[in-house]
Amino acid sequence: MSANQTPDTAHKILAESLGQMVLIKLRGGKSIRGRLRSYDMHLNVVLDNAEEEMNDGSWRKLGTVLIRGENIVVISPM
Amino acid sequence: MSANQTPDTAHKILAESLGQMVLIKLRGGKSIRGRLRSYDMHLNVVLDNAEEEMNDGSWRKLGTVLIRGENIVVISPM
Amino acid sequence: MSANQTPDTAHKILAESLGQMVLIKLRGGKSIRGRLRSYDMHLNVVLDNAEEEMNDGSWRKLGTVLIRGENIVVISPM
Amino acid sequence: MSANQTPDTAHKILAESLGQMVLIKLRGGKSIRGRLRSYDMHLNVVLDNAEEEMNDGSWRKLGTVLIRGENIVVISPM
Amino acid sequence: MSANQTPDTAHKILAESLGQMVLIKLRGGKSIRGRLRSYDMHLNVVLDNAEEEMNDGSWRKLGTVLIRGENIVVISPM
Amino acid sequence: MSANQTPDTAHKILAESLGQMVLIKLRGGKSIRGRLRSYDMHLNVVLDNAEEEMNDGSWRKLGTVLIRGENIVVISPM
Amino acid sequence: MSANQTPDTAHKILAESLGQMVLIKLRGGKSIRGRLRSYDMHLNVVLDNAEEEMNDGSWRKLGTVLIRGENIVVISPM
Repeated sequence: MSANQTPDTAHKILAESLGQMVLIKLRGGKSIRGRLRSYDMHLNVVLDNAEEEMNDGSWRKLGTVLIRGENIVVISPM
Repeated sequence: MSANQTPDTAHKILAESLGQMVLIKLRGGKSIRGRLRSYDMHLNVVLDNAEEEMNDGSWRKLGTVLIRGENIVVISPM
Repeated sequence: MSANQTPDTAHKILAESLGQMVLIKLRGGKSIRGRLRSYDMHLNVVLDNAEEEMNDGSWRKLGTVLIRGENIVVISPM
Repeated sequence: MSANQTPDTAHKILAESLGQMVLIKLRGGKSIRGRLRSYDMHLNVVLDNAEEEMNDGSWRKLGTVLIRGENIVVISPM
Repeated sequence: MSANQTPDTAHKILAESLGQMVLIKLRGGKSIRGRLRSYDMHLNVVLDNAEEEMNDGSWRKLGTVLIRGENIVVISPM
Repeated sequence: MSANQTPDTAHKILAESLGQMVLIKLRGGKSIRGRLRSYDMHLNVVLDNAEEEMNDGSWRKLGTVLIRGENIVVISPM
Repeated sequence: MSANQTPDTAHKILAESLGQMVLIKLRGGKSIRGRLRSYDMHLNVVLDNAEEEMNDGSWRKLGTVLIRGENIVVISPM
């Protein structure tokens, strides 16, 4: 296992993003963005000040959300 | 494992929400809201006074519901 | 693990519903209701006097049914 | 584990149905009916004289079929 | 475990069908038929002289195919 | 376990196809064809000179591709 | 296990692509391309300078993204 193929590929980028805004794309095409409060080994994440993207491209406030990792396709620091 | 990457990311926010209203988004796009009575390690949750969102945006009473964790995308304290 | 975060969240509400009418929502949007005869650790359930909801909102008799837990989204005592 | 919450919830109703006609609803909405010849712990089932429901509501003969348990939503003795 | 509830429910009917024509229905509704050459414990199967059903009801030659068991809904000896 | 029901049903046909052209059908209906360079126990495969089938029936060059086994429905030597 | 059927089929092609542009096709049909920064044993990958393909065929900048391996169908060095 080289330095680039480590178990923490996913976790390293999440650790660097704690307290930062992230954009999360879910299965089915929805997006949610918010401030990354915490995450766990299943890639479950908790966002504060979260908003979800509506069909018309606007964003609706959700507040704090727990997102189950299994439904996440992409996580992107903003 | 840092303080922010703990196994209880999901569980901590649920513990804080016991007895409170939560909004749950399910796979397929449906939403259910209600008072969080209990949950388990699979993120199965039981809500009291639950209501489901109808296609016209209204809410229909369901009473007490058990939701299987596997179908949950997002849990949000209201 | 607190009193509210126990392995039997799902099972407790099922145990209380034995012999009672329950409404079960399945993946894909179908609903089945009937009298809860038994269940197991996979949330497989057996209902007596079961009926399934038709597209026009009416209910069609199915008799006794075994529903595989994996397909269940919500179980609600009626 | 009470008498009603046993590992064989699913298997008991199948054992009682051996040699009987059963209706099986599959993921995706299709139905198959036939005489239950055997089943296993994964809920794989073998039906004899099986027929599948067509879109127009008629039934087409399939003969003997093996159905993988993973695709089964509901099994109902007829 | 009775004589009818054995681990080989699925495998017995496959063993009987070796060298015979089988019809296989896949998730998503497609069908493939061919001569059963071999199978394994995951219900992966290899068919010779396989054909797939087209939307217009005709059959297109595929030759030898390996079908992953996970995608199989129904196997039926022809 | 008979000679025909062996763990390598899938692997045997892949071993015979190394360096040969194969057609791979993916979940969701897409097809990719190319020269089989290697595969592993999860049925992940690497193809060289791969092309994907477009909606109009033409083929678009992809070059070398890694296909995750989980998404493969059918592998067919060409 | 022959030289061509090794556990690292997937990982070898990823190791060769570190620092290179790759095209990733996701379940549901979306594509993302970017420079491969790292990956892990679950095929989770991190891309820098990532872009996603829009419905009109154009590409929208995403920056750095973590893609969960489970949602990946095809990875192709560009």
